[in-house]
Amino acid sequence: MIRLAFGAMFATFLALCAGCAGSPPQTALRGTGDLGIVIERATGRVQVVDTTARKSLSRIEGLGDLSHASAVYSRDGRYAYVFGRDGGLTKIDLLAGRIDRRVMQAGNSIGGAISQDGKLVIAQNYEPGGIKIFDAATLELLSDVPSVYGSEGKRSKVVGLADVPGNRVAYALFDAGEIWIVDLADPRKPAVTKFKDVGRQPYDGLVTPDGRHYLAGLFGEDGVAMVDLWRPELGARRILSGYGRGEEKLPVYKMPHLRGWAVAGRNAYLPAIGRHEVLVVDTSTWQEVGRIPVKGQPVFVMARPDGRQVWVNFAFPDNGWVQVIDTLAGGVVKTLEPGKAVLHLEFTPRGENVWISARDDHRVSIYDTASFALLGKIDADSPSGIFFTSRAARTGF
Amino acid sequence: MIRLAFGAMFATFLALCAGCAGSPPQTALRGTGDLGIVIERATGRVQVVDTTARKSLSRIEGLGDLSHASAVYSRDGRYAYVFGRDGGLTKIDLLAGRIDRRVMQAGNSIGGAISQDGKLVIAQNYEPGGIKIFDAATLELLSDVPSVYGSEGKRSKVVGLADVPGNRVAYALFDAGEIWIVDLADPRKPAVTKFKDVGRQPYDGLVTPDGRHYLAGLFGEDGVAMVDLWRPELGARRILSGYGRGEEKLPVYKMPHLRGWAVAGRNAYLPAIGRHEVLVVDTSTWQEVGRIPVKGQPVFVMARPDGRQVWVNFAFPDNGWVQVIDTLAGGVVKTLEPGKAVLHLEFTPRGENVWISARDDHRVSIYDTASFALLGKIDADSPSGIFFTSRAARTGF
Repeated sequence: MIRLAFGAMFATFLALCAGCAGSPPQTALRGTGDLGIVIERATGRVQVVDTTARKSLSRIEGLGDLSHASAVYSRDGRYAYVFGRDGGLTKIDLLAGRIDRRVMQAGNSIGGAISQDGKLVIAQNYEPGGIKIFDAATLELLSDVPSVYGSEGKRSKVVGLADVPGNRVAYALFDAGEIWIVDLADPRKPAVTKFKDVGRQPYDGLVTPDGRHYLAGLFGEDGVAMVDLWRPELGARRILSGYGRGEEKLPVYKMPHLRGWAVAGRNAYLPAIGRHEVLVVDTSTWQEVGRIPVKGQPVFVMARPDGRQVWVNFAFPDNGWVQVIDTLAGGVVKTLEPGKAVLHLEFTPRGENVWISARDDHRVSIYDTASFALLGKIDADSPSGIFFTSRAARTGF
Repeated sequence: MIRLAFGAMFATFLALCAGCAGSPPQTALRGTGDLGIVIERATGRVQVVDTTARKSLSRIEGLGDLSHASAVYSRDGRYAYVFGRDGGLTKIDLLAGRIDRRVMQAGNSIGGAISQDGKLVIAQNYEPGGIKIFDAATLELLSDVPSVYGSEGKRSKVVGLADVPGNRVAYALFDAGEIWIVDLADPRKPAVTKFKDVGRQPYDGLVTPDGRHYLAGLFGEDGVAMVDLWRPELGARRILSGYGRGEEKLPVYKMPHLRGWAVAGRNAYLPAIGRHEVLVVDTSTWQEVGRIPVKGQPVFVMARPDGRQVWVNFAFPDNGWVQVIDTLAGGVVKTLEPGKAVLHLEFTPRGENVWISARDDHRVSIYDTASFALLGKIDADSPSGIFFTSRAARTGF
């Protein structure tokens, strides 16, 4: 009788715990809308963070070289795809706090994207130059689009990769001076549309938040190349002919990240190159309409989601500062010192807080964007990029 | 010995299952970024849906009168707060597929909002008129702001409640002709700013996607009242003086939902009142710049997230149709028949699909917004509102 009861109880235990089997016991049921990751660049590690509790939840190791690493998210917000500098592509499970899958996909890589339908992950590579298209569930390689240009079969570095509506990606070829749009309708046979002679040495690119305009900054000349993705038949055009280092070739300590371009209302706010200024550009004419003096050479120029504020960090030697521009007042309203070597900042989805990484102080500082009060700090080993799951719902990341 | 082993095993069972205790065994670990709910208005029930698999996950019963019900989401995307017509406020757990908490908070209610920081849920009530502020975690009532106006202590119906940046809400008083902005910094002592004489009988309101402008449509006269929340010192102003039923008082089968106003690029697309037209308004001047003929009296006029398309449904007798406007071409490019009595539509976060409810055909139809292909259907009992968790990351819902 007792043995029988024991057996029955054991069976009940197994049945009750069937639901636990697929998930590690340390993981409680929770939503993913307020999660994110912080890259710990020196140690090949990421921290999973909670933007509601403002705390770290777990650390995931073994992601390789994470200098200049970036990440995109699955539709459900559970998985991040982390693109390492060494060509490693790692799919991490934020809920379980572990690596789900990992592949070495290139020799030298500089970021990636996820398709609008969430089914494909795309990596952009310097070496060998091109993009690779992976199944987002399995990381199986589906196809490879080598960035071959000219008549000698050379491959260009790929930069500025961004997802655009219609399950496509756009990117620029640094060595070729071209912009390519790739339709992923059949991911094993991607369809490429090429825009040639867009300008010399496009070094980074972005798509506007509405997904309509793809812009590539030019390193080899002053100006920006732009393609209107709604009217590709017009070809690429050159805008902002004064945008660059200018004829004097100002010393540039760090090329700004175009991905940081802020669009707020009808204006875009751009990091000037080599100058202590943020440029204001009217997006209906793409003409410069103003310049705002700031404390150093801007690197990231990022709009709070409502566009009322634009936050700016700087290249060395001013990389301990962050300044806040009020877009209504048209000037700097606050200067903060979040720590040594500020590398990145990320707003919470509705903009009430901003998280700022200070690499050499090994911390992430969290500010209230209305009062500028410091709300908390998280210890991190040489933190760089910060990426929240709300990116899953947005275009152009 | 056996009893001891049995006891030890039982203890082990308890310890191992400690992690299961808070969650029903049927629920697997999963992200919440691709979840949503469909209101089944006739049965006091909601369906939890998955926008990746395009299927129903669970049904949750016991939510009371769900005619005209709406919902907002917790920051983490796990919980929906459903506002019922009968004054019921129900917090449901999408992951567990059950009611977490429920209160009857008023006699007659018409929607609600969640604060920017996610800590407060606010209900707007017709009877008794006013708003109530609840702790989002516990649904404890923190304060009540009666909509008292004039000298006799009357309370107005409250309409058009929307969250706005700075942890505030904005709404209109139908009977008083006022717009109120409430600062929730101290939720037990909310601070009210009142704009009086904004126009006769504001019947609904919305905040622009950037959170800057609050607009209230007027029923008692032609026109729209607007407050620039960045410059409240300017007071409320009247715009679009031709917007309304006009001097002839056209028959209106259903007042359009202002919350459906679409802002795409610099233009807003508005349902005309009583006319078979969608109005195009330049948001930099708030002047009408065009009218697009459509199949019926528009109810919801909603922009795909990238603003390239605007989708429109109609009042009876044209409520079996949905039309798609191409904002670049400036006209209708597609007419669909999703079923009888189309009540609502909701885009997936990045706009690749749209879900459309057809009440009298008891189904939700899912379309590809690029090809207009019908991708799937979900059976639902008199479906009305569809709300996806991506709303948690957006302002003005």
